[in-house]
Amino acid sequence: MRQSKLFTKTIKEIPSDETSFNAQILIRAGFVDKLSAGIYTFLPLGLRVHKKICDIIREEMNAIGAQEILMPALTPREIWEKTKRWNNFDALFKLVGVDNKEYALGATHEEVITPLAQKYIFSYKDLPVYIYQIQNKFRNEKRAKAGLIRGREFSMKDLYSFHTDKNDLDSYYEVVKKAYFRIFKRCGLGDITYLTYSSGGAFSKYSHEFQTLTKAGEDIIYICDNCQVAINREIIDEQKVCPECGRENLREEKSVEVGNIFKLGSRFSDSFGFKYTDENGKQKEVIMGCYGIGPSRLMATIVEIHNDEKGIIWPKEVAPFLVHLLYLKSAKEEVKNTAEDLYRKFNQANIEVLFDDREDVGAGVKFVDADLIGCPVRIVISEKTINQSKAEIKKRDSKEIILIDIEDVVEYVKELMC
Amino acid sequence: MRQSKLFTKTIKEIPSDETSFNAQILIRAGFVDKLSAGIYTFLPLGLRVHKKICDIIREEMNAIGAQEILMPALTPREIWEKTKRWNNFDALFKLVGVDNKEYALGATHEEVITPLAQKYIFSYKDLPVYIYQIQNKFRNEKRAKAGLIRGREFSMKDLYSFHTDKNDLDSYYEVVKKAYFRIFKRCGLGDITYLTYSSGGAFSKYSHEFQTLTKAGEDIIYICDNCQVAINREIIDEQKVCPECGRENLREEKSVEVGNIFKLGSRFSDSFGFKYTDENGKQKEVIMGCYGIGPSRLMATIVEIHNDEKGIIWPKEVAPFLVHLLYLKSAKEEVKNTAEDLYRKFNQANIEVLFDDREDVGAGVKFVDADLIGCPVRIVISEKTINQSKAEIKKRDSKEIILIDIEDVVEYVKELMC
Repeated sequence: MRQSKLFTKTIKEIPSDETSFNAQILIRAGFVDKLSAGIYTFLPLGLRVHKKICDIIREEMNAIGAQEILMPALTPREIWEKTKRWNNFDALFKLVGVDNKEYALGATHEEVITPLAQKYIFSYKDLPVYIYQIQNKFRNEKRAKAGLIRGREFSMKDLYSFHTDKNDLDSYYEVVKKAYFRIFKRCGLGDITYLTYSSGGAFSKYSHEFQTLTKAGEDIIYICDNCQVAINREIIDEQKVCPECGRENLREEKSVEVGNIFKLGSRFSDSFGFKYTDENGKQKEVIMGCYGIGPSRLMATIVEIHNDEKGIIWPKEVAPFLVHLLYLKSAKEEVKNTAEDLYRKFNQANIEVLFDDREDVGAGVKFVDADLIGCPVRIVISEKTINQSKAEIKKRDSKEIILIDIEDVVEYVKELMC
Repeated sequence: MRQSKLFTKTIKEIPSDETSFNAQILIRAGFVDKLSAGIYTFLPLGLRVHKKICDIIREEMNAIGAQEILMPALTPREIWEKTKRWNNFDALFKLVGVDNKEYALGATHEEVITPLAQKYIFSYKDLPVYIYQIQNKFRNEKRAKAGLIRGREFSMKDLYSFHTDKNDLDSYYEVVKKAYFRIFKRCGLGDITYLTYSSGGAFSKYSHEFQTLTKAGEDIIYICDNCQVAINREIIDEQKVCPECGRENLREEKSVEVGNIFKLGSRFSDSFGFKYTDENGKQKEVIMGCYGIGPSRLMATIVEIHNDEKGIIWPKEVAPFLVHLLYLKSAKEEVKNTAEDLYRKFNQANIEVLFDDREDVGAGVKFVDADLIGCPVRIVISEKTINQSKAEIKKRDSKEIILIDIEDVVEYVKELMC
């Protein structure tokens, strides 16, 4: 894409009430705009990153047999009454229609998915089933000061699984755990994300969160360095040692919850009378699990982790573009022409490139913008490099600058990054 | 995809309060589920169709230089006060947060896009700009009886354009008109969709709708058979003849509005004090246009048009799968194996195929389901066809059945449909 055509620009002024680092830098670099506390617009660059995160999640969900659907955000009061959560679910936005019908804005979707699955699942032959969606959720939060980490409107991937029994749930739960770690690794959060024991429900002692270490986190976890797992502070009173090896010496860290998985058992199938017929013709409760990841929160977490004083450093799988191609203004026509030619070649090679073709912008601004936006590879064409038939290549996460023959640039980038 | 894995099934019972044909057949065939009046879940088959419609729209929007963003659904009262629409916009869902902050659910997004564009557009050099999103909208409708044609929650592509002057708006308006006709043509609605003159605003005498002829429509239009344009009934009192050729003899038809385009002028830029600096340093009003298409309404309209007594007949560009491959149960292992082999070959050739591999389902049910679901090409493998080394191929919109050598099937389908 040509930067001269991008309607957003990097900006210096951020909203005075925006105190979170992730939102500040995403606003400055032109990825998001703040509409209201906890409510953001995804601009072209931000939407690209968000889509890449969603596509990674989709790939990993499809790979474990999950089927994608899309449920509504507007959900009628009746279904929340059935599960006794109309008055008990924290932070539900409620509203009334012209016909006096009452609705909640979907803050989670067990109340929709359970009766939906019930329409299609009757027998043990129909099980197991795994269904997910990626959709905006709404939470009536008192405070919304963590930028995109805790929004009033935010994107969520929610997966629900339906099983004949606990054993089948247990084994799929482990499958999802592995898929989640693949997602966090691909998003550049692999090494610093811990499986974290958290409070369970009536059905299982623990649930599990995936907690990523960052100072911006709102959670405190205790890590066992033997097992590379952690305990959430909320259960430390009842569980003071590592639940896997019994170690007592745990390390305290701040973290953000980037995912959670939960064995629901029959909590929701009971509310809707959702049963199936087993091999012997007997009616049994359907056993459920639920599994969440917030793509917009993930995007904010990536930014909190991958940055320096100059701007964002996107991991390559979620970068808005792999390459940021700049040319520095020169009296020599050849400089611009060479850059234009390289831009065409990258497009032909299907390598995503943001081309800073702006004519009225100086070298200094172009460099500052490239660092702020944070594409993994920066390529500069200038009079100086042209004179040697070279291009200057720099990785965003390195200080090293190398000169490569112009005709080899596309191939070099391919090998470097793909 | 294997039909045995699809968690939905075709169903015989439809909700008793569902009176619209499009929703009835989409529910029966397993494309959508009804959560509440005017509120639907997109199931795996329905989400595939919806995504294809959205991708066609995206391609055509990107081709006319528009940039995609994603705005929130939760919008604060203040912005609606600025345009004096908080109390005047029909069917706005309103709600209150824990901090007593008031919100409207986005029913349209001029109030969000205008101050957003204002943050990045300062000079004539920054114009024109074209920005769109695809997102769910919410309307507090009194009645919601037209299925997916008029929902309380529904998907919408809304494009907004920003210009230095009326001439520039006028020429882009014509560009969008052409893009819209390409979209409707690709969705199988080309010949029966009419550019329809409708009431304008302070800025222009008319706006334009795109009206598709169908008995399910809620609108009445008057068509000029000379010019292939129409007039909406709402302006027939002031405009009794064809606005293009002056013809008086107009044909009355029922229709559904599948898109609309509107010259806003400075209606919204004025509310936000959104001006730009022209070539002479003078401050001038930004001139705007807006352009809508509802993908979920488009899906419903396609279904209203393309069907027969047996089910849906999807146009190929929006079909959930191009091919529906069935095998009929047989004692001969070869029947199943041949079908499995063909399924692999279609996947290798990147031709989307729904494979009815269900073992416990008879031929009758498989045929009925295939007609109901409505993929463009049906392929049957049975003992009868196998004995001649053939497969039976039938297009959904034709009665003709032909036998093709099994090894030629993939190539034949490619030539037939691609």
